[in-house]
Amino acid sequence: MTLKLGVIGTGAIGQEHIRRCSKVLQGAQVVAVSDINVDGAKAALTRIGIEAEVFANGHDVVKSPNVDAVLVTSWDPTHEEFTLAAIEAGKPVFCEKPLALSAAGCRRIVDAEIKFGKRLVQVGFMRPYDSGYRALKEVITKGEIGEPLMLHCAHRNPTVPENYTTDMAITNTLIHELDVLRWLTEDDYKSVQVVFPRSTSKTHAKLRDPQVVLFETRKGIRIDVEIFVNCAYGYDIQCEVVGEEGIAKLPEPSAVQMRKEAKLSTAILTDWKDRFIDAYDVELQAFINDVTAGKLTGPSAWDGYAASVAADACLKAQESGAIEPVELPPRPAFYN
Amino acid sequence: MTLKLGVIGTGAIGQEHIRRCSKVLQGAQVVAVSDINVDGAKAALTRIGIEAEVFANGHDVVKSPNVDAVLVTSWDPTHEEFTLAAIEAGKPVFCEKPLALSAAGCRRIVDAEIKFGKRLVQVGFMRPYDSGYRALKEVITKGEIGEPLMLHCAHRNPTVPENYTTDMAITNTLIHELDVLRWLTEDDYKSVQVVFPRSTSKTHAKLRDPQVVLFETRKGIRIDVEIFVNCAYGYDIQCEVVGEEGIAKLPEPSAVQMRKEAKLSTAILTDWKDRFIDAYDVELQAFINDVTAGKLTGPSAWDGYAASVAADACLKAQESGAIEPVELPPRPAFYN
Amino acid sequence: MTLKLGVIGTGAIGQEHIRRCSKVLQGAQVVAVSDINVDGAKAALTRIGIEAEVFANGHDVVKSPNVDAVLVTSWDPTHEEFTLAAIEAGKPVFCEKPLALSAAGCRRIVDAEIKFGKRLVQVGFMRPYDSGYRALKEVITKGEIGEPLMLHCAHRNPTVPENYTTDMAITNTLIHELDVLRWLTEDDYKSVQVVFPRSTSKTHAKLRDPQVVLFETRKGIRIDVEIFVNCAYGYDIQCEVVGEEGIAKLPEPSAVQMRKEAKLSTAILTDWKDRFIDAYDVELQAFINDVTAGKLTGPSAWDGYAASVAADACLKAQESGAIEPVELPPRPAFYN
Amino acid sequence: MTLKLGVIGTGAIGQEHIRRCSKVLQGAQVVAVSDINVDGAKAALTRIGIEAEVFANGHDVVKSPNVDAVLVTSWDPTHEEFTLAAIEAGKPVFCEKPLALSAAGCRRIVDAEIKFGKRLVQVGFMRPYDSGYRALKEVITKGEIGEPLMLHCAHRNPTVPENYTTDMAITNTLIHELDVLRWLTEDDYKSVQVVFPRSTSKTHAKLRDPQVVLFETRKGIRIDVEIFVNCAYGYDIQCEVVGEEGIAKLPEPSAVQMRKEAKLSTAILTDWKDRFIDAYDVELQAFINDVTAGKLTGPSAWDGYAASVAADACLKAQESGAIEPVELPPRPAFYN
Repeated sequence: MTLKLGVIGTGAIGQEHIRRCSKVLQGAQVVAVSDINVDGAKAALTRIGIEAEVFANGHDVVKSPNVDAVLVTSWDPTHEEFTLAAIEAGKPVFCEKPLALSAAGCRRIVDAEIKFGKRLVQVGFMRPYDSGYRALKEVITKGEIGEPLMLHCAHRNPTVPENYTTDMAITNTLIHELDVLRWLTEDDYKSVQVVFPRSTSKTHAKLRDPQVVLFETRKGIRIDVEIFVNCAYGYDIQCEVVGEEGIAKLPEPSAVQMRKEAKLSTAILTDWKDRFIDAYDVELQAFINDVTAGKLTGPSAWDGYAASVAADACLKAQESGAIEPVELPPRPAFYN
Repeated sequence: MTLKLGVIGTGAIGQEHIRRCSKVLQGAQVVAVSDINVDGAKAALTRIGIEAEVFANGHDVVKSPNVDAVLVTSWDPTHEEFTLAAIEAGKPVFCEKPLALSAAGCRRIVDAEIKFGKRLVQVGFMRPYDSGYRALKEVITKGEIGEPLMLHCAHRNPTVPENYTTDMAITNTLIHELDVLRWLTEDDYKSVQVVFPRSTSKTHAKLRDPQVVLFETRKGIRIDVEIFVNCAYGYDIQCEVVGEEGIAKLPEPSAVQMRKEAKLSTAILTDWKDRFIDAYDVELQAFINDVTAGKLTGPSAWDGYAASVAADACLKAQESGAIEPVELPPRPAFYN
Repeated sequence: MTLKLGVIGTGAIGQEHIRRCSKVLQGAQVVAVSDINVDGAKAALTRIGIEAEVFANGHDVVKSPNVDAVLVTSWDPTHEEFTLAAIEAGKPVFCEKPLALSAAGCRRIVDAEIKFGKRLVQVGFMRPYDSGYRALKEVITKGEIGEPLMLHCAHRNPTVPENYTTDMAITNTLIHELDVLRWLTEDDYKSVQVVFPRSTSKTHAKLRDPQVVLFETRKGIRIDVEIFVNCAYGYDIQCEVVGEEGIAKLPEPSAVQMRKEAKLSTAILTDWKDRFIDAYDVELQAFINDVTAGKLTGPSAWDGYAASVAADACLKAQESGAIEPVELPPRPAFYN
Repeated sequence: MTLKLGVIGTGAIGQEHIRRCSKVLQGAQVVAVSDINVDGAKAALTRIGIEAEVFANGHDVVKSPNVDAVLVTSWDPTHEEFTLAAIEAGKPVFCEKPLALSAAGCRRIVDAEIKFGKRLVQVGFMRPYDSGYRALKEVITKGEIGEPLMLHCAHRNPTVPENYTTDMAITNTLIHELDVLRWLTEDDYKSVQVVFPRSTSKTHAKLRDPQVVLFETRKGIRIDVEIFVNCAYGYDIQCEVVGEEGIAKLPEPSAVQMRKEAKLSTAILTDWKDRFIDAYDVELQAFINDVTAGKLTGPSAWDGYAASVAADACLKAQESGAIEPVELPPRPAFYN
């Protein structure tokens, strides 16, 4: 039995997911797509080598009787609208992050989903599907390091474009940690503080870089995340969990060990796309399998909402320099 | 377009491949299987959750008009017979190692394939599809370490059963290096010598363990392979290539780094099945894609023959203690 | 020419230094010692196998015409008194940390030294003499990682005795970082904040453990130091410097790499005494050489004072939970 | 009590040892030196900043009533003569390697020492004093890896001068392994074989490089040593001991870990002088202490002889390409 997918938005990530669902993953088929640029959409399908209905409007994808489930990979401001439409149509929907432009928007989706009475939404947070993070979580869950007390994390990019501003360190970069660290610790953020070291000379007027974001969780875990998006040397994701019995560290990506030019070295990735490439496959296969099995288990609308609430508190903390509360309402039983 | 597969032999590895082709990979479907134990075969299909024709005789799988390509995963002594049958039927065939029980048997397959006039055979050597070996080969091919001069390798198992004997260190264990090192160096073996260190106290009367196998290649590369199948500590595959400019080493499998109990450590695998698990997927997907594209590119009947010739020389060297020539005839242009 | 040393206090560390100066280092000789327990002092000299004058009172050591320079290794509350006495006598003095019990006490020593008009005091901070920290500083000084922006540090002990309290995490443990990080960055602390993660279940009522201390320096470098004195797994000192061009990390102590019991591991030290054992030799040899050469270059009274001022701010921050200023007066030209 | 040393030969290594004994180590004093170039010797003493008698002839150093013990650091061909003279004079002697130019010469020293009836000779093999090798031996001795079965070793230099020839790979380079591996395994060589990989393009007509030397020991341990003196990338000493329970590897020299330019790296040394620099101090301090204590414990004349016998067998194996026996007579009880 094959899951018939409709994809809203055929930009870069949209085309990636279409290719993935058509050429790599099992159990799904892309039967309809939409894009404001219809010719572009058609060209994309040709390049990928599949046939599907092409619409100019995402709502037609949602409505199409042919479509079992929807992927929302359109322009960020339209994510909320199309996700709500899918819920209204009772169709499972995989929505790329951000789920909505605001916490309020995410909340509307949560409420709609609860009202519908069944989980229909998976948010496109891929890190929980990364084998390294999964191995790290397994170590924690097995109790190999005892109760987690502290996390030391870093999110480093070699460089960012001129239009990348201080707030985007939260909304575009930290957003991944905001989700995966909740998943890893099975905990929620209580408060957040942002401190700014001297900036690197490689940044520009509108971007304070690096930044250090400090969280306290409800269980009392302290988390520090270094965000350094002009670190020059590579794309490097670090996560170290300090527990009562020991410390566990996210694996470095596997690489050939070299002895050359007076150095013992392994390569560090420079392109973020390579870092979690496998996780995207696992993530979408899980969505396909879960929809087929009739029970979603991945990052939920609530997770998208929680990340959004945390992001808002981080943005406030960037401004105030103070310790800001993260005011996430109690988790509805619906999401337990 | 879906490739219709027939699988001969539904033992452990056969079932693995059926599951793989049905549930993991793209572009193929298992439409027929055979096993001398027909009920067992039917039970396996049920467990896996697919439907297919079930025969008692592999030749019926080969003959079935429904079957586009064949996987031979039957009892070793039958590999040659079914592979020859597939060639005669003009059907692409993926044959698990060993391709045949003897170099002569492999040669008959080579001759049959040449006679047929088109590559139809892929041998089930999976290491060339391992991401670590591929990364290592890329480093060499790019010239990052200059011309290879020496390889230092090790193939270690924690333990082996009582029925594992000295010769099996070659035919069951070293056989993987015999193939992958030819592929890695793009070279052939010229001679081989086997030396026996004192044996571990963990071995038994019929198994000298460890062994060190020393090769010289036609280009003059020197290769040493330590085979240690009762090494106790883990399943550990090592390969270090020493070149004119530097040294490249096969990546260690990625693992969580722990600080615990006065040790900074990463886990070493203990079950060989985990080590190349991904490679099996890549290997079979490549077979499916290549058959569909009409051109096989994986380990060929010639590679199976070359490995078999080298293995025979190793066995002779185990007996004689002398440096034995590896007498591989010139590669037929057919395989260039 | 041999430097004649007097040692005040023949407890554990005192005996260590006597042995060191007598049996390991060059250019010095212990000619006089003192201890309130005179018999204990005599017994110690016999054990070590040297002869020297033995006094009951440290001031007699300072006064002895036989003594060129003084080592103060007595009970902490007496450090200030004997160091001031040595300055008054115009004799070079190596004083174990703490230089005094309070910043005010350190300041009195600074003022006395300035009044005397020549550097006479070296404080017993040994980390700047550790080969690892020296290698790390060289990397920074050479500009290999560009301007330092952040430091991520950890100071972990496997366990501490029952009488170790929350404040001692600063005065006994962090005190080493307080000195060595000033030396490493050639910078001073501007402010400090202390946050408390949930405590490990291995601690007791009077000790909040772990703690995270956050500094901003005058140059704007952000430093986080994790103090975890019941970390269970080992004695582990970490220091990572994040610069504009790259990151440099304090070397792990050299150790045999093991493959055993499904682990690839190196040993982590468990006894702090082993970690900087060589640094003590280098530190005291430097004092001996510098005194002989007539010019002290090691950690100065000012460095002792600066560390003490920073420690006071940390203690205040432990109480207040707020960001506390570190109010160190301008460095007197005398110490440039 | 200070040991009065006489040093024969004030070339590079001689001056190093004079400086060491005068400025770094304890318990010794250089009171006499000799060199055919008397003015050079005087200039050296001035540079180092010590005073001592200067002779033109090493025999005068041996004879000098002022001299308690002798260091032989003269031209290789004179080592045997001066060492024999010291034995005849009943004076302890530290002789730089080679102890003599031939195994026969070493044997003459052994016989003279036995005749004298007390150990007087220490050969200048420094690796047994290297902290890394000591840590490795401790692991083995403690039984942490069980009985050693195989050793995989490498001795790599970045480059060698034009006058370095194939045989010198044994006599100048492997000679260190020949000694330290006997010490590490507490075993003797039974046979040796040398194989030559294709040579690096960086070598010259008179030097086959790399080489692989294969030993079997009397206990049946198999040892392979790669000698690669134009390896280009660094000075790199590797030693891996494979035992019944696990594997122990010689520590890499401690170094700062860098994340820079898309590489996670640590520096590899390029100058052999830096690799065992500390071991020279430990080695000579041990000689001084042992002489003072009246009992030599370091590498003995017998060890020098055994290394020389093994080297001769290696040279023969280079020529013959065959497995050559290492014919070391039974160890005299005198050396147990």
